[in-house]
Amino acid sequence: MFTDEYFMKMAFQEAELAFEKDEVPIGCVVVSNNRVIARAHNLTETLNDVTAHAEMQAITSAANFLGGKYLINCTLYVTLEPCVMCSGALAWSQISKVVIGARDEQRGFINKHLNLHPKTEVVTGIMEHECSAIVKEFFRSKR
Amino acid sequence: MFTDEYFMKMAFQEAELAFEKDEVPIGCVVVSNNRVIARAHNLTETLNDVTAHAEMQAITSAANFLGGKYLINCTLYVTLEPCVMCSGALAWSQISKVVIGARDEQRGFINKHLNLHPKTEVVTGIMEHECSAIVKEFFRSKR
Repeated sequence: MFTDEYFMKMAFQEAELAFEKDEVPIGCVVVSNNRVIARAHNLTETLNDVTAHAEMQAITSAANFLGGKYLINCTLYVTLEPCVMCSGALAWSQISKVVIGARDEQRGFINKHLNLHPKTEVVTGIMEHECSAIVKEFFRSKR
Repeated sequence: MFTDEYFMKMAFQEAELAFEKDEVPIGCVVVSNNRVIARAHNLTETLNDVTAHAEMQAITSAANFLGGKYLINCTLYVTLEPCVMCSGALAWSQISKVVIGARDEQRGFINKHLNLHPKTEVVTGIMEHECSAIVKEFFRSKR
């Protein structure tokens, strides 16, 4: 039951909430022991704040839930590959696993040869098509 | 009067506040038209939040002051070279200028070949000795 697809679907629902608010539709959840401890979607326009990416909010929220700043034994599910800023935050958090929906070849951290924490496992391509399609649809609607 | 040293001294005072709170002593200010519009120091321990670096707080705070998310015509003065996370946030902010006290060869963004926004001017080495010494003193006191 608790597959990567199961939790990515929840992250995708967060992306849909962002879309409805006219935000670039990216969402994520943080899971610990098969329990969702944080969920967030991009709010950069709503909050007028470039740092309000889904991942940043979720890292802060999960640490608050856990009562400690390190996200050990936690997994982040995020619909789009994290940017430089978010990858840096994930590295500091020492999170155990990061599961990515769609790649972001241009803005994502992977092509910039950045690493997360040495202990962090990275998985890509979960619900890739849906996670990519919603972002494309958003930018098409903006033209 | 409004030299880089003038504003770096204010950033350094923020670093001193962090030191008093047993935080890694890094501080910064954001300046617009020779006016300080945001000041912050590292609060990762106090807030239990790896994202609570001085720069991240100052970017959010300055955008809040300006009523817009882009820090055009703003300068960030920071005592230590920004990390990957903070450099990513600064890139998104399109800030006009970043003035750095001491370099951070290991954790800083420069040696990782990351760029800020193409329009952002970067200056290093302002009050370098003091900005470096306070961090070294902090970690010496921890041993």
